Amino acid sequence: MDKIKVGIAGYGNIGRGAERAVNAAADMQLCAVFTRRDPKTLAINTPGVQVLHVDDAPSMVGKLDVVILCGGSATDLPEQGPAFAALFNTVDSFDTHAKIPEYFQALNGAAQDHVAVLSVGWDPGLFSIIRLLSQAVLPDGETYTFWGRGVSQGHSDAIRRVPGVADAIQYTVPIDAAVSSVRAGNNPQLTTRQKHLRECYVVAKEGADRAQIERDIVQMPNYFADYDTTVTFVTAQELKANHSAMPHGGMVVRSGATGQNNHVIEYSLKLDSNPEFTSGVMVAYARAAVRMASAGRRGAFSALDIPPSCLLVQDAAWQRANLL
Amino acid sequence: MDKIKVGIAGYGNIGRGAERAVNAAADMQLCAVFTRRDPKTLAINTPGVQVLHVDDAPSMVGKLDVVILCGGSATDLPEQGPAFAALFNTVDSFDTHAKIPEYFQALNGAAQDHVAVLSVGWDPGLFSIIRLLSQAVLPDGETYTFWGRGVSQGHSDAIRRVPGVADAIQYTVPIDAAVSSVRAGNNPQLTTRQKHLRECYVVAKEGADRAQIERDIVQMPNYFADYDTTVTFVTAQELKANHSAMPHGGMVVRSGATGQNNHVIEYSLKLDSNPEFTSGVMVAYARAAVRMASAGRRGAFSALDIPPSCLLVQDAAWQRANLL
Repeated sequence: MDKIKVGIAGYGNIGRGAERAVNAAADMQLCAVFTRRDPKTLAINTPGVQVLHVDDAPSMVGKLDVVILCGGSATDLPEQGPAFAALFNTVDSFDTHAKIPEYFQALNGAAQDHVAVLSVGWDPGLFSIIRLLSQAVLPDGETYTFWGRGVSQGHSDAIRRVPGVADAIQYTVPIDAAVSSVRAGNNPQLTTRQKHLRECYVVAKEGADRAQIERDIVQMPNYFADYDTTVTFVTAQELKANHSAMPHGGMVVRSGATGQNNHVIEYSLKLDSNPEFTSGVMVAYARAAVRMASAGRRGAFSALDIPPSCLLVQDAAWQRANLL
Repeated sequence: MDKIKVGIAGYGNIGRGAERAVNAAADMQLCAVFTRRDPKTLAINTPGVQVLHVDDAPSMVGKLDVVILCGGSATDLPEQGPAFAALFNTVDSFDTHAKIPEYFQALNGAAQDHVAVLSVGWDPGLFSIIRLLSQAVLPDGETYTFWGRGVSQGHSDAIRRVPGVADAIQYTVPIDAAVSSVRAGNNPQLTTRQKHLRECYVVAKEGADRAQIERDIVQMPNYFADYDTTVTFVTAQELKANHSAMPHGGMVVRSGATGQNNHVIEYSLKLDSNPEFTSGVMVAYARAAVRMASAGRRGAFSALDIPPSCLLVQDAAWQRANLL
């Protein structure tokens, strides 16, 4: 069987993770990397792969079975998603939850001749599937999602924009008491503050007012004001030595009742590398995109719309014999 | 929108659980219960529902959107599954793992004009989905399934067949050391004996040789010989008072690596009532069977083949806005 010819757009942490996962997949071949930089300056890890400017993507039409879009949700994907979906089957990890319906419409309109898989990773993505399955099989109940302990890039970036801050890392931390109550099946009402803590490790610029930095962080609307937030000042060396890894994880818990009986469903992830795990999910959905396109499907699909069997290299008969 | 017209075949623990779940679903209406007993002797909990003998199922063709088959895997489903799938869309919880491929073929041949969903419940079913997703997104790793602590009907029945035994309940218990090692990402090699204990609570007949009963149980091939098994003799009153509930549960854990980084995926269920939870899963897949049939699909499908979105009463736009 011919290998699936894969392109990757964007060569940051997610793009390099996708490259690793594609190279590890027996049924895939990495054929092209698209970048917004000058292609001549981009040294990639896989020999023999074309590096092209994103503007030259149309030259690869018909030569790639799927393109994995590894850009960010804020500015890259709203533009790149529909543009690539008009040319190729695509998969992305669009994760601005509130804008997913609008992004779905844009992709669905663009993917007239292709399959565009949006918002796959672990949340949205795997966690979305678990939330749906849990609610479907246990309709009388409550679902809770906890994130962490792990690095939030968005919150880390927000701290870096505070005057006097040279660098920073923010960890989102689920609060044990809340997790325990949910796991016990209590179905508690939890405020934002009761669910997660925010731990900030901050490198201050020389001579900066640390008390002011701390106030600016903990009072920041949307990002920190609704949470209990700790600020710890560290040196640049300490930040690099102790806070360079990108661990993450989290859990989805649903508890509910059937008549007099209670049930608890829990799904949890403990990840050493958020970008590597996320890109592994994207590569599995790249396979699904190709299979769905081969079956004649067209348009935009989320993880909720895709049969699990499409994700795995082994065929349906193997799956029935070994996984059911 | 018209409600989904549901039939239930078999009125044991699973059938009554399915009845409860159908009555709780806003989009479903229970219309018929099929039984192998004399229908006149079967008192069901829902008023106004027809009770028919299974042999009269053909009289309901065209009047039911889906039939939930609540019989057992050993003798009921191999015959009832294909027979009903020739007449109706169906869903069942066939769980004899080794015979699933053969059962799939029989159902797939019979369901020429219908959708037959096989082997849904929590294992096979939800656990199967988790095993597939986990392997697909983390291909370099190992998957472990633990069951319990919970009652195994098959093992309880096996004890009841031992000479001198009046009644018995068997609990399958995962071994903490094995679970801890798997959760820690050690990917241990585990024997059958290292994964689960078997706890037996036995009522002996008057004058029976208890030592002989214990030997007969712990040495029983397939069921107990490969496990560490404890046998505790109790009175009939104690068995009824302390061992009448049907709790169960279990977990699927996969740990694996991407390059130098390790990741652990865990899915667990804690269920007060195994049959009520199982029937809740079946009712969600009954909805999926109807939706897939409406979309023109035909044949046999497992949980692996069905898009999650088909399971939930809310539509795809609601799902994208609220669950992604």
